Parts: sequence; C-alpha cells; structure tokens
Amino acid sequence: MSDNSKIKLRWLNPISIPSCDEPMGQMIKDVANPDTSIEVVSLNSLIKMDNLEYRYYESLVWGEISRIAYDSDNNNIDAMVIGCFYDPALEDCREICKNTIVVAPCQASMQVAANIANKFSVIVGQEKWIEQMTERAHRYGFANYLSSMRSINIAANALQCDPEYTIQRIIEEGRKAVEEDKAEALILGCTCNFGLYKTVQEALGVPVIDPLLAAVKSAEHLAGMKNQFGLKPSNKWSSEAPPEIEMQKLGLDIYPVPIGNKVSY
Amino acid sequence: MSDNSKIKLRWLNPISIPSCDEPMGQMIKDVANPDTSIEVVSLNSLIKMDNLEYRYYESLVWGEISRIAYDSDNNNIDAMVIGCFYDPALEDCREICKNTIVVAPCQASMQVAANIANKFSVIVGQEKWIEQMTERAHRYGFANYLSSMRSINIAANALQCDPEYTIQRIIEEGRKAVEEDKAEALILGCTCNFGLYKTVQEALGVPVIDPLLAAVKSAEHLAGMKNQFGLKPSNKWSSEAPPEIEMQKLGLDIYPVPIGNKVSY
Amino acid sequence: MSDNSKIKLRWLNPISIPSCDEPMGQMIKDVANPDTSIEVVSLNSLIKMDNLEYRYYESLVWGEISRIAYDSDNNNIDAMVIGCFYDPALEDCREICKNTIVVAPCQASMQVAANIANKFSVIVGQEKWIEQMTERAHRYGFANYLSSMRSINIAANALQCDPEYTIQRIIEEGRKAVEEDKAEALILGCTCNFGLYKTVQEALGVPVIDPLLAAVKSAEHLAGMKNQFGLKPSNKWSSEAPPEIEMQKLGLDIYPVPIGNKVSY
Amino acid sequence: MSDNSKIKLRWLNPISIPSCDEPMGQMIKDVANPDTSIEVVSLNSLIKMDNLEYRYYESLVWGEISRIAYDSDNNNIDAMVIGCFYDPALEDCREICKNTIVVAPCQASMQVAANIANKFSVIVGQEKWIEQMTERAHRYGFANYLSSMRSINIAANALQCDPEYTIQRIIEEGRKAVEEDKAEALILGCTCNFGLYKTVQEALGVPVIDPLLAAVKSAEHLAGMKNQFGLKPSNKWSSEAPPEIEMQKLGLDIYPVPIGNKVSY
Amino acid sequence: MSDNSKIKLRWLNPISIPSCDEPMGQMIKDVANPDTSIEVVSLNSLIKMDNLEYRYYESLVWGEISRIAYDSDNNNIDAMVIGCFYDPALEDCREICKNTIVVAPCQASMQVAANIANKFSVIVGQEKWIEQMTERAHRYGFANYLSSMRSINIAANALQCDPEYTIQRIIEEGRKAVEEDKAEALILGCTCNFGLYKTVQEALGVPVIDPLLAAVKSAEHLAGMKNQFGLKPSNKWSSEAPPEIEMQKLGLDIYPVPIGNKVSY
Amino acid sequence: MSDNSKIKLRWLNPISIPSCDEPMGQMIKDVANPDTSIEVVSLNSLIKMDNLEYRYYESLVWGEISRIAYDSDNNNIDAMVIGCFYDPALEDCREICKNTIVVAPCQASMQVAANIANKFSVIVGQEKWIEQMTERAHRYGFANYLSSMRSINIAANALQCDPEYTIQRIIEEGRKAVEEDKAEALILGCTCNFGLYKTVQEALGVPVIDPLLAAVKSAEHLAGMKNQFGLKPSNKWSSEAPPEIEMQKLGLDIYPVPIGNKVSY
Repeated sequence: MSDNSKIKLRWLNPISIPSCDEPMGQMIKDVANPDTSIEVVSLNSLIKMDNLEYRYYESLVWGEISRIAYDSDNNNIDAMVIGCFYDPALEDCREICKNTIVVAPCQASMQVAANIANKFSVIVGQEKWIEQMTERAHRYGFANYLSSMRSINIAANALQCDPEYTIQRIIEEGRKAVEEDKAEALILGCTCNFGLYKTVQEALGVPVIDPLLAAVKSAEHLAGMKNQFGLKPSNKWSSEAPPEIEMQKLGLDIYPVPIGNKVSY
Repeated sequence: MSDNSKIKLRWLNPISIPSCDEPMGQMIKDVANPDTSIEVVSLNSLIKMDNLEYRYYESLVWGEISRIAYDSDNNNIDAMVIGCFYDPALEDCREICKNTIVVAPCQASMQVAANIANKFSVIVGQEKWIEQMTERAHRYGFANYLSSMRSINIAANALQCDPEYTIQRIIEEGRKAVEEDKAEALILGCTCNFGLYKTVQEALGVPVIDPLLAAVKSAEHLAGMKNQFGLKPSNKWSSEAPPEIEMQKLGLDIYPVPIGNKVSY
Repeated sequence: MSDNSKIKLRWLNPISIPSCDEPMGQMIKDVANPDTSIEVVSLNSLIKMDNLEYRYYESLVWGEISRIAYDSDNNNIDAMVIGCFYDPALEDCREICKNTIVVAPCQASMQVAANIANKFSVIVGQEKWIEQMTERAHRYGFANYLSSMRSINIAANALQCDPEYTIQRIIEEGRKAVEEDKAEALILGCTCNFGLYKTVQEALGVPVIDPLLAAVKSAEHLAGMKNQFGLKPSNKWSSEAPPEIEMQKLGLDIYPVPIGNKVSY
Repeated sequence: MSDNSKIKLRWLNPISIPSCDEPMGQMIKDVANPDTSIEVVSLNSLIKMDNLEYRYYESLVWGEISRIAYDSDNNNIDAMVIGCFYDPALEDCREICKNTIVVAPCQASMQVAANIANKFSVIVGQEKWIEQMTERAHRYGFANYLSSMRSINIAANALQCDPEYTIQRIIEEGRKAVEEDKAEALILGCTCNFGLYKTVQEALGVPVIDPLLAAVKSAEHLAGMKNQFGLKPSNKWSSEAPPEIEMQKLGLDIYPVPIGNKVSY
Repeated sequence: MSDNSKIKLRWLNPISIPSCDEPMGQMIKDVANPDTSIEVVSLNSLIKMDNLEYRYYESLVWGEISRIAYDSDNNNIDAMVIGCFYDPALEDCREICKNTIVVAPCQASMQVAANIANKFSVIVGQEKWIEQMTERAHRYGFANYLSSMRSINIAANALQCDPEYTIQRIIEEGRKAVEEDKAEALILGCTCNFGLYKTVQEALGVPVIDPLLAAVKSAEHLAGMKNQFGLKPSNKWSSEAPPEIEMQKLGLDIYPVPIGNKVSY
Repeated sequence: MSDNSKIKLRWLNPISIPSCDEPMGQMIKDVANPDTSIEVVSLNSLIKMDNLEYRYYESLVWGEISRIAYDSDNNNIDAMVIGCFYDPALEDCREICKNTIVVAPCQASMQVAANIANKFSVIVGQEKWIEQMTERAHRYGFANYLSSMRSINIAANALQCDPEYTIQRIIEEGRKAVEEDKAEALILGCTCNFGLYKTVQEALGVPVIDPLLAAVKSAEHLAGMKNQFGLKPSNKWSSEAPPEIEMQKLGLDIYPVPIGNKVSY
C-alpha cells in the first residue's frame, strides 16, 4: 500500500491581494485528495500587485515567488504551485528547491492535454498574453501540439466579474478554435477561469482543461512520486541550487518570507 | 472530497508470455493507490512474441494492442497502460478510446522528468532502440530536453536475468550520461527494468525514473482527472474513433479479445 | 548498358477487398517500364477491412502489411509499395527487408514534389487525415515545403464513386491551396485518386502528383539502383532485421502469408 | 507501355576544365537506361575554374550554371544535372526551367538514402565543406536523418589521383561514421568520388551512395515522370520564371551559351 | 577616445543601371556618421540587369557581387553593403573577405527589429519574393520572430514611381500585418523603399525599418568594432577564403573589377 | 549630417557591489563614441548580491532590473545595457520601455558574431551556465550558429582575480571549440571577462567577442537609429507597456529607484 496520500501542497497566488485565496482554497480543497493538506498563500509584496497582465508586473514579484519556493523547500512542502498561467519564475523556483516539487499551470495543463488530444488550443484573456505563452509552449516542447491561441478580450482580473459573459466568450472563441483551427481539446489560459470549464466542455464536446485543476492534480501526482520513490528535483548542473553557506554569507536568510496571507485546509 | 480513488487500471504486457504478469502486477499493486483496482493482461497472439526488440515484432502485435484498448474502452477501464517503452500503437489506442485514458511509459516518463530536471538522458537496452525512441521523444516534444540516449547492451528479455549486472551497467552508462552528456536526470528506457531504479538513484545522486512507475502513477493521475472532471479523451478530428455502426458492418466485433492471461488485484 | 529494367514490383493494397486490385494493376501496368513485372496483392485478413480511414483500422492490418513485406523479401520482390497514403507500417517493413526496397506513396510523392516546386499542398479526402499525414510530412523532413493540407470531404472509398464530383472538389480546394496558401504544386493525398490528376493539372496549371504514379515510378527507380549498384536496404542499427534463427524459434514462419488476392502482369 | 525511356539528359560539370567530361560521360553511359541520350558539358567560363572548393569559386560560375539551365530548357533537355555536391544554383536553375527537370547530387543522394536507411552520414573531402553541405541537408529537410559529416581531408581535385588512398580514407572515416555516429548508410559527398562506392560498400556492409549515380538515376526517374505524366517544373509563385519578353528587353539572349566542351552518347 | 569614426563604406547596387546610385548615395550621406566616407557603386555587367526580381537575374550577377567584395577586401573598404533585400551572395562575399565586413539589408533589418519587437512582419513588393526571403529569415534564425510576409504587388523597379501610392499600399498591408498577423514592428522588404518608412511609421504607430538605413548603420557599427577591436571576418573552416596563390594560378586577377559606376562622398 | 552621436547610455551592473562600476565605466568610456555620455549604475538591493551564478540569485534582482529600466525610460536614457550575459529580465525591460532601447550582452554578442562567422562557440565560466545560455541562444534564433558552449570552470566573480590564468583557460577551451567543435569565432560568455579578448584573439586567430564591447557598441548603434529615425521600442501587442494610470493606482511610483551607486562620464 502506498502512503503518497499525505501530501503538503502549497498554492501560491503571486499577487498581493488576498481576496482570491479563500475561494481558490475552497475549490482546491474540493478537488484534492482527502489526505492532501492545502495552503493557499499570497504575497506581502514591497509593491502591491493585483494582476500580472504585464511582464513588468511579473518582474516585480519574480523574486518573491522564488523566495517563497525556497521557504517551501525549507518547510517540508511537498509541492508548490505557482498560480499564474505565465508560469512565472518556474525555472528559478525549481533550481532553489531540493525537495519541493514546483508545478505551474501552463506546463501542467499542456502535459495533461497531450495525453488526451493530438492538437489543442489555448483560450487566453488578452491578445497581449499570446507571445509569452507561446514561448512557454515552445519551451516545454508543445509547438507541434498547438493549434492556436485565441483571445476573449477580458482581463485576468475581470474573468470572474461576470462569469456568464466569460463563459459565453470562451465558448465563442473555443468553437472557432475547434472548427477553424482544428483543436481537439481546449485549455483555459488563466487560473482565474476556475469553475468555468465544465459548461464549456458540455457546450463544445471536447475536453476543456481548467489550469487550476491540472496544476493541483499534477502537483499531487508528482509529489506522490517523490514521496514514494524518492523522485526529488534534480540538483545537478543547471538544476543545482546555490550552496547554503554562500546564501548565508550573502545574508539571504535575514529577510522575512514574503507571504502576506495564508489560508490552510 | 474527491472520489478519483476508485480507478480501474489495466496494464497490458504486449507479449504472449504470461510469466511477467504476476511479478509486474505485484509491483504495481505495491505502488498503486489503495483504491485502484489493477489488472495485468498479456496477449493471446496469433503469433507468440516474447519480446519487442524489433519493429517487425511490434507490428505483429500492433492490432492486438489496439483491440485490447477497444475492449478496455468497452469495459469501463479508466486507464490502460501499454507496457513497452516504444509506446507501440499509442496513437491508435487513443483514437479508439472514448473513455479509457491510454498511457505509455516513454511519454509518461518524459513528462515526469520535465518537471524535475531541465535535461535528461535515457538508458536503453540496445543501440538498436535509440532511433525509434528518439523519434518518440521528438514526437512528444522533448527534443530539447534530451541530453543523450545510451545503451547498456542488454536485451529487454535479459534485463532481469542478472539484476546486479544490469544495475552495474546502468550505473556505468548513467554516470557517463550525467558527467559527459550533462544529464540532470535519468530515465530507464524499458519497462523490464522494474525494481532497479532505486540503487541507481542512490549511486548517482540524480533522479532516476522507472518507466513502469511513471506510467502507473500517470495513469492514476489522468484517470482521476477524467473521473473527477469529465476529462475524457478527445473524439474530435484526428482523435475521432470509427463509428460503432461501421465497425459492426465490418464485423470487427466477432473476434474474441486477444487477452491470453489476466491477473487481477 | 544497364539491366535494371527487369524489376519485380509488388503493389500491396492493405485492405481485404480485392475489387481494386484489377483496375489498379491495369493502371500500374500502363505506366510501368515494359520490363517490370507487376503483382497487385490484397489482404487475407483475420478481420476484413475495406478502408483505412481510422488509425484503428490501420492498426488491425499493421502486422499483415509487415508480414507481406517479409514475404516479399523472401521471394525476390525488388520493390514493394504499401498502397495507402498514410504509409502504414513503412518503417516496420523497411526493417524486415534486407533485399526488397519498400516504398510508400506519401514519402514518394513528397520527394518528387520537392524536385519540381518549393512549396506544395496536399489535397486530402477528410479533415480527419490531416494530423496524421502532417506527422508523416514532418517525419520525412518536408515541414518547410508544406503550404497546407486541404480536405475535400470525401471518404477514400467514395473517391472513385463519382469521379467528376471528386475532380470538381479537388479543383476547388486545389485552387484555394494555390491562390490562398501559395502552393506551387499539389499532391493528391490518397491512392484512390488514381486517374484524376490530369484534369486537375490542366485546370490549375501547376504540377499535380498522383501518389500511385509517384510510388510506382519511385519503386522502379530505387529497385533499379538496387539491382545495378547493390543499394540494398540498410541492415544496420535501427534498420537491423531480427535474426532468422530467432524468428524461427518464435515460430513466425508457420503461418501462411496473409495475401488474399493476387493479380499479376 | 510507357515511352519514358527516350530521355535527353544533360550532365553539367560546372568547371571550365573539360578533362572530366569524357570519363564521367562514359560512366554515365554505362549506368543510364539504354534509351537515354547523354550529353556531358563543361563551362566556357569567363574565368577558368578547375574546382569549386570555395563559395567564391562557386559564385563565379553561378550565372553560367543557370544560363546553361536556361539553354537546356530551350533545347528539349528533359533533365539537367548540376554536377557538384554543393548543388550550386539549384533553386535558380529550377526557376528558369519550365520544361527541364533540374537535379542535383546532394538532394538526389539524400532522397535515395532516406528510402533505405533511417540515418546516414556524408563523407566529405574537406572539413571546409561541412557547414555549407549541412545547410543544404537542412534546406532539403534531412536534418533528422543526418548522423554526421566526416572529412577525409582530400581536395575534390585530388580524389581521383590515388583512388586506393581515397578509398582507404573513405573506409576509415566511414567506419567511424557507422560505429561512432551510428550511420546506417553513407553518402559520398563529392561527384568526383565516381567509381569508388562499391569497394567501400563491400568493406563496411552498409549501403554507400555514389552521388553521380544517384543524380543520374533520379534525373531519369523524374524526367520519365515528366514525359509520361506532364509533371513539368512548377512555374507558380517562387517557381515562376521571368517573362520571355522581359528577358529579351534586357538582352539576355544575345550572349552565347557558356558551354565550353560537350561530349554526347 | 575611439577612432572608429573613420570608416570607408561601400554600398553596392547589384544592378547595371547607375540611375539609383546618386539618389541612394545622397540618402546614405545624409544618415551616415560624418566621418564615414561613402562610395556607391553599380555593376558593369556582362549582362545588363535593372532588377533582381527573379532568382535567375540574381544568378547572373552573383559572381560580380562577390568579385566586388573581393575588390573591397583588397582596397581597404571597411564595410560593404549588398544593396538588395534578397541578400544575394552574402555568404560568398563573407568568405572571400578577410578584412571587409559584408552586410546585407535583410539580415541587418531583422537584427535591428529583434531588439525592438518580439514579432515583426516584412512588407514585400511581390508575392514571388516571399519564399526566398522566408528562407533567408530562417537561415538567420528569425523563424519565431516572423509574424508574416505580405505583398503590396508592386515591382521593385516601380516602388519609387509613385511613392504616394506605394506608401498607401504599405500602410494597407502593414495595418493587416499589425492587426491580423499581430506584428509589433514592420520591415520594408526592398532597398528601393528608401525614404518611405517615416510616413508609414507615423500612420501605424509601430516601428518601421527601412532596410537601407538598417544596413548602412549596421555596417558602420560592425566596421567600427572591426577597427577598434580587430573583429575581422573569420577566416576559419567554412569562412576560409581561397588561398591567394591558387587564385592567381587560376588567373582570377586578370579581369577588371566589374564596377560600372561609382559615386563618392 | 547625423546627430546620433549624442547618446545617453546607461550600463547596469545587476549586483549590489559597486566595486566593478568604476573599472567598467572607464573601459566603456575608452571604447564609446566621444559624444556618448555614460552612466554605470549598480543596485541598492533589498538583498545584497555580488554574483548571479544561480537563477535564484537572478530572480532576487529581476524586479530591480526592470524598475531601473523604467527609470531609464523616464529619464531620457537612450539605451540601457543589462550587464550580465544571462540577459536577465531583458523581455521585461523591453516591455516597460517606450523610449529607451534595452540591450543585453548575449543577444548583442551573437548578433555581431553572426555577421563575421557561420558558426561560433561560447566560452562560459561554469558548466552550470550552459543550459540557460543555450535557452537564450535558441530564443534569439542562433541554434544553428552554435558550435558549442565550453566551460573554463571559473566563477564569474573570479574571472578577474588572476587574468593570466583566466586567459590561459579561455585559450585552452577556445582552441578545443575551434579545433574539435569547428567554431569559426568565439564569444566570451560573461561580462566579467572584460579586457581579455585581445590576447585570446591573437592566440587563436579567430574573432573573439567581448560581450561588454558588443553590448556597448550595439547600444550606441540602436540608440543612434532611434534618435535618427524614430525607431523606438515597439509598444504593440506583447511589447505593450502597462498604462501609466494603472501603475500609479498600484502605487508603483512611490518607491525609490533601486540604484545604489552611480558613476558618470
């Protein structure tokens, strides 16, 4: 019998507004394995961010994301999810973690999609996002799987304002992705789409991947493998973390962990 | 609370020799989630195969693999694993299945590896395998992740004959993969390597992925997502299965399912 | 003076319906070199297939195709053509053959096209085919040559039912391929299009490649080189065939060759 | 019965030294179809070139090559071969020809190789050639087929000086290509290697492609298809030739065709 | 203080009509660094060319371009620009030059664009050009930067006939490139567009790169680095120039340099 | 006459140790155009960093780099150079800047190299760096230009400790890059190599690019084009900067610019 069920999972909302933490935590709790313990944290940023629509905004929280990864690694977190579909600072977080598996929604969603369809499209919030998310898709190896990225012209912040409208727009653009671009599955390209996939899936008749769900379940999957089989993150070559002693010399340990809010389940 | 724990998983050994079914089944049972029900099946082939070292051998069981996938789809199997690192008939099995998630060890292992290392190598049994497995890696999008494939010059059939020797050879070539080719993680490129990863992992200090474990846990992961979120295999465009009525007209239903042996847990 | 004119060519219709064998054979005879001897064979399948529209259908005859390749190799066939534009089991057939050159219509057509145009499109029967044929084009190295694949929405089986309509549809989609996708040549993406290329070519003013003709003439070309210069299929590394002695031990020789119908010229 | 046997083939040695024309012509005659008429021509260059080892040398005859292609197109030549493994001016010659099929040794050899092996290496004369020939291989789509290019350190001009030595060097580097780089077939990367392939092939046990033979037989193959099926070079988009009337206005017709020597068979 | 301001720059119009030399020279003078000395030369071709719309036309001046590069190298020219957006004979010119930096407008424009935008489109004169210029973009590594190439259907020769109309058409197609193809910057795909970029830039609000300006300023930049830091063109491996002694033996020095017209500033 | 000589250039050392600012500033002054005004700045980081050997370290200064880019954009800096060969936060800085050209050493060096050689190698400090710098090279389109990356096993911090030893090691690995990997030019893969290129260049006889020099001169080149031709950074699609009003609402303007030290020339 396996004991990979005892997993400590941390979901990081890489913004400084705690209002999403509770609803997301509840949603994650609802879908996680019963034995998974869940923490949702958001940032105590020097600079308060309520969205990451721009690379500039991402850059401002980049270091805070990786510092929370480091904190996760030091506090027996089995898996940390970076809660943004840009997967910001993913490679940095993976480098600093020797124990914690770091998962991000874009990579996780595309890995799931590649098991259930030969081609998929991503429905994004804004045209602006496409170049950067395409770079991610290429980086992860999914160039040939990608049918298209299509925008619904709704900002990340606004996706949950009028869910009916958001769903309608996803269905409109999703239908074009399927009929015109020949997508066989869809990925919703923002973690703020939580709760919307099911209606779209029923309307369009193709699998629709909610990146929050893909990330959480992939985190459990990989953390389970780590706990069962010792499959910790590599610490070799480009994956090597800086030496503890050097980090202490640099004084990297004196600052508080930039967690601003935390809810636990 | 999730109910994705009730998963029916079928592992298919795509050969006609049942002797591996029991030990593999035991190993799978040991690592599966407690609520997962497990079947290990092997073929009742027209032509008896005890290895798939050659493309020709694979071709002879190609249709039987896909017919067992079809049978899985009709019998509420949540996930079927094709038990060979060539991932034979994977695309065909995925097309015929509207409900069953089909998983294969090469893709599953590389997806896992891409979460814990930036570069990985595959330790294969024979030089012969490399071109075909490289094609698979490229097909799945892992061209840039691949440091190398290295052969230990042991046939698939012989990997378990003298496990100490096999482990020694994997460590030798694995060390070269890490030191010379700059791999940050290793994948053992044959499901017959089961039980060997741990010693190698300890010896080399990098994550070592056993494809049997990667496939089983990925199957549980994806089947769980299917059961929880309705994420069934796409049935659109290239993923569309043939219509039932046409298959009946062709008489595809009159032959027995080519399962030769079955063990259940 | 060369003696490459004495070529034994076998065309394999990888279905179990012999009705096409005669007309195809006649057409091949009409275009082959006078000294080429021609055999058209179809399958004596366990499961009767009259089309290969689906990967699942292909998988069911996969082993029979490769067994006929093996039979060809043992019976002094100089070149065998796999008569389907998916090029099913091509790599498997090439591996098992030490003497017989194996040719397939998709690769042969694209190689011809790459000599007479910088960009080409493929006119396929159904949308469904595109993902798999695109994979073939990429595998053979023609990604940059491909302008588009366009579907006429006619099943392979029906292409010869109403040739006038088929031609009309090919011209319609072919014109779009030329005018919108900037194709400089067209390939008809199914061997069942035989006899149709000429009208399209005249209508559109670009070269139009009939895959049957491309495959037959390429087979003669390569078989001629084999006979003149000893250019047999490689038997090294991934091209190595299984040892005869192992195949006998496996009992691969006891079953009859799955040829159901044969016409000779 | 086909009449594609009446083919007018022109082999162009793109240098201004006629000494190779006779022996090459004889060799071509020996391997061509009996009904093929053969011309071997070399240049009457403004600047006398006896080798094309450097891009600069190639550039000096670039226009002469394409003018002879134009002359071929106007004089019912069915197929013209550019007799240099750099395939100089190939795209230019193809553009100007509306009737003549233009074939070049590098592309022809690689197309043949891709039918009989999954991986191949090219044995070149000098290190210097490798970057440019690799560019050709990539352009033609053979990046994934290429195991390596290996140099024997003999200039093109000197390959026939001491054929025994040349053969010995080809075998040495060819063996490394097979054993170390895992090539399954070899291509001799210079048309001046004529007559050498057979000994290498016997010594190494893998197919060895003589580019002269590959080019001549591919030229016959493609010219045959042109004559039988009207498969002329595309004249659309990037393949469009300049209008005759414009060429006359430019006065492109007043200069003599730069053929310096011609032998016919 | 640096002395890279003393640069001898030669702009080559690779046609035999001197009428553009003067206006282009004036324009270059206006934008060059004050200490840069400028020569504009055109060809004294065997065959008079007034445009390079076709590959065939390019081929006819290929050798003359490279001979002028050789002359530049022997006459202390710091940088030579090949004045055509096809970048004809660029690799050949670079090989023959040991001192002169050779710059071409397509590569120079794309390098500039890649510093100020993540995606760009090229506005070309004719559909015909697209395949060849795309090949250039791929060769230089800009495949992922390219949003599209769009044609305004005006020949190179006619771009300056009615500049208002040309600008109107560039704005029309440029707007589609930005709005439909998501270009973030535009490149004008012909050196004959000189003087037009500014109006387009103002109209569309994205950076618009004039290839003449990009080439001239890149030439100054690279020539400056050569003069300051000794960064001469590589003469190693594929970049190695033919030995002087061999060129003399071939008699390559007896012909006059094919410069037909020269204006200096 | 051009007035692009008046350029305000800011070099950012993205560490918090000011000791390099003065020597680097002096070196930049020595090579810059006389009219270029120069500022060298380093960080006033929350966390003091003296090297960026690890992704984690980079992440900690990521936001500070982009905030200084924003400050540059608001203070009439014509060009800002990010002084680290990882090119950290390059895309982020480019997005936030509407006026300032942002240049980084890796991209700048490779663009220069691609003008003077067909293949180049990068000599890096540590094995660790290679994966990330290779990602950069691929991102910028230089995959096909790259012969190899080779490590001298010296940390960035230590490159100037014993310059003789550093030079000796660069020559050793550089020679292997040229002789074994067939590089035609070399790039020194760290800005801390300043002052070393010349000895290596003389020893090896191939161009050796100092990334500090490449970045400074490219910055002048691009800033000059901006000033002369209005070629400002694109602000469209993925290049669009966040709206000023939103940034004010987020309070992004209240914190001081994280410049810790500044030297001006």
